[in-house]
Amino acid sequence: MQTKTNDIRDIFLAGATDAVTATLAAEHPADLADALQTLDPPAAWTTLAHAPVARQADIFGYLDHEFQMLLATVMPRTDLAAIVMEMNADDRADLYKELSDQQRKALMPALAQAEREDIRRLASYDEGTAGAIMTSDYAALPPDLSATKALTMLRREAPDKETIYRTYVIDAERRLLGSVRLQDLITAPAQARVADIMEINTHAIRVDDDVEAAARKIAHYDVIALPVVDTDGRLVGIITHDDALDVMEAEATEDFHRVGTVTRLEAGVGTASIPMLYRARIAWLMVLVFGNIFSGAGIAYFEDTIAAHLALMFFLPILIASGGNAGSQSATLMVRALATGEIGVSDWGRVLGRELVVAILLGLSMAAAIAIIGVVRGGPEIALVISLSMVLIVIVGSLIGMLLPFLLSKLNMDPATASTPLVTSIADATGVLIYFSIANVILTMP
Amino acid sequence: MQTKTNDIRDIFLAGATDAVTATLAAEHPADLADALQTLDPPAAWTTLAHAPVARQADIFGYLDHEFQMLLATVMPRTDLAAIVMEMNADDRADLYKELSDQQRKALMPALAQAEREDIRRLASYDEGTAGAIMTSDYAALPPDLSATKALTMLRREAPDKETIYRTYVIDAERRLLGSVRLQDLITAPAQARVADIMEINTHAIRVDDDVEAAARKIAHYDVIALPVVDTDGRLVGIITHDDALDVMEAEATEDFHRVGTVTRLEAGVGTASIPMLYRARIAWLMVLVFGNIFSGAGIAYFEDTIAAHLALMFFLPILIASGGNAGSQSATLMVRALATGEIGVSDWGRVLGRELVVAILLGLSMAAAIAIIGVVRGGPEIALVISLSMVLIVIVGSLIGMLLPFLLSKLNMDPATASTPLVTSIADATGVLIYFSIANVILTMP
Repeated sequence: MQTKTNDIRDIFLAGATDAVTATLAAEHPADLADALQTLDPPAAWTTLAHAPVARQADIFGYLDHEFQMLLATVMPRTDLAAIVMEMNADDRADLYKELSDQQRKALMPALAQAEREDIRRLASYDEGTAGAIMTSDYAALPPDLSATKALTMLRREAPDKETIYRTYVIDAERRLLGSVRLQDLITAPAQARVADIMEINTHAIRVDDDVEAAARKIAHYDVIALPVVDTDGRLVGIITHDDALDVMEAEATEDFHRVGTVTRLEAGVGTASIPMLYRARIAWLMVLVFGNIFSGAGIAYFEDTIAAHLALMFFLPILIASGGNAGSQSATLMVRALATGEIGVSDWGRVLGRELVVAILLGLSMAAAIAIIGVVRGGPEIALVISLSMVLIVIVGSLIGMLLPFLLSKLNMDPATASTPLVTSIADATGVLIYFSIANVILTMP
Repeated sequence: MQTKTNDIRDIFLAGATDAVTATLAAEHPADLADALQTLDPPAAWTTLAHAPVARQADIFGYLDHEFQMLLATVMPRTDLAAIVMEMNADDRADLYKELSDQQRKALMPALAQAEREDIRRLASYDEGTAGAIMTSDYAALPPDLSATKALTMLRREAPDKETIYRTYVIDAERRLLGSVRLQDLITAPAQARVADIMEINTHAIRVDDDVEAAARKIAHYDVIALPVVDTDGRLVGIITHDDALDVMEAEATEDFHRVGTVTRLEAGVGTASIPMLYRARIAWLMVLVFGNIFSGAGIAYFEDTIAAHLALMFFLPILIASGGNAGSQSATLMVRALATGEIGVSDWGRVLGRELVVAILLGLSMAAAIAIIGVVRGGPEIALVISLSMVLIVIVGSLIGMLLPFLLSKLNMDPATASTPLVTSIADATGVLIYFSIANVILTMP
């Protein structure tokens, strides 16, 4: 899609009015947004202004939040208000949340009363809840309407709704009764009532439910949208499949970064500033420095043993790295399985048993491999020390890597905090103690 | 969703015919499949047999491939054939691919000719291509049909199609001309022709395109489905939004595992067998053992320096771990950004410059932190050695972590092969050399 962006960008940069207008009408808003974001904000606004306002709103909705903000500051306030009026309810509320107090004060009076209230309401839900990503552009029907009348109504409302493929059935108090697929409305006998053809089981989510849980529910049930209800069961919005996909992508990226000890990055790697990148990395690096002091202290403690048997040093990196590597593998498997919901916190006992067996097998295999090098480089006594150490270190490392994500989950922390470098640091320090303790016992035996 | 599975499972286990039949009719097929998978295959089949065959097919489509296979071996062949006839075309082709030759031979004669050909065709596409996940259950229209007639046709076809929300417009040779949203068909004037209201820009994908690229295109354009065409532009299938979501989930898991040096796991962690888990982990652990021999050899090479200055050993774990940790962060950021398409292989130069600046800043910060400990534990000379080493090690580690994913991409390997443990191993060995070389120069100076 890189080439598409460049092609559109070239047309924008050339600036021929006819070509720009035609491109803005013909290409997909997602591609147009990608191309606009490669321009400076003033040039981007000059370009975007060639499109009709409804189209401007479509394209604006696909821009990154940062770029929306940049554009909002360079364009005339009345033009911004016109775009905001036309935007999807959820995109509009997201933009509002990013605006400064001053920008909000400038924008809001230019909007109609209904839009103002809708924006304030949608923007009031906490980040990370279903309410924060839902939209109010859903279609709703009363239960006793006929299928024909329902279709007429949907026909009229279609242009303002995010989807009419699934319509929600509500009573006079807006309580959710069920949902109807457009497909079923079309194929229903003309005089059938909406209540007769609706599905009761709508898998509604609560407005304060976790947004990830909502996204997983959409994936689980393969639906186009899920209804969102308040504590009284009243319909307040819907979450659509495309937003669910975005949530799951963002969540996967966040977990991915977290296991690599990168903290929240507000922008993509390609666009993040140097201070942003520095901030996302320095804290964990510092924590880990101090974590590794324990390994250093362990080595210092066994200085005499090391001085007497310098050959032990050759095997130190191999042994402690193996514990860390085995632990990283276990942590990786657990973090992802907990994130996707494949296993739950209560499964830890069941997983522990298998992990132990696997770890013993892995430890024995690696001990066998390293024993040979041990005999060659240090003789049978050293070989015995490093083989025994390897088995124990791999087992302990694996168990640390496996248990840490569960423990963090239990403490209501993100399991992905059990990052590879954290597990490695803990396994390293443990490995140093195990290795030199075993060496001390065996090599000082008479 | 765990509790839902357990509730349904309890009803299945109790085995009261009325309750089982009612549950099979009322609950969502995804939940029913989850519950069935907790039973032994014979008990699962006895339970499933209480549903009408169309419902059986719906539920069967939601089972994991492994469980589908287990069920296929315990159920009568005619029942299996009946289910297969009713299944979605893509789920059916996936099942066929999993069957043994013997099972295929038993099943195929029981199917109608059209189904046999459709299965063989869909199953013939290579894994990882758009063809391998597309379905042939799409609705297609000729361009000169009126909107009213098109609706009548769709009404009739709806039950057999995965989606009629977007219908594809094809000419007499099945060449793709455009697509029509159901929404637009409904709101169109009755005498409008399909060709007048169709969108030309259908963002078709080629049957041999990468499946991930296809999934990203669905996410990018926020569409319900994308058409798949052959080399002559003829429509051969569609990929739907729910399949795109599954592909992106699976891909994220695979990348996640790969950066944790876990190789392809055919089942989920919760269900994988001990030999499967062992196989997914042992190969990389062994590779890394031998990788760490370089670090050991580096230490052995500097044995005299170490023997003369045993205090150096205290700082060894901190210094080499810091290089590995900084490298892991860089690799994590790059692997994910390359996977999501946020940056491309050609961006490496642009990223390198920023990475270098960030790495210098990080290295200086960490050197400052560790210098204090150095003065306390080893005096100013040691403090100088470790500070200098820290700056260099963090810079080199970061650059290794950043460049390796690009290099692997360039060599047509998966960038996620630049796993955290691999980067750590390489950074470790480099760190040992940097540290002791600097120590050697500074501490032996007159």
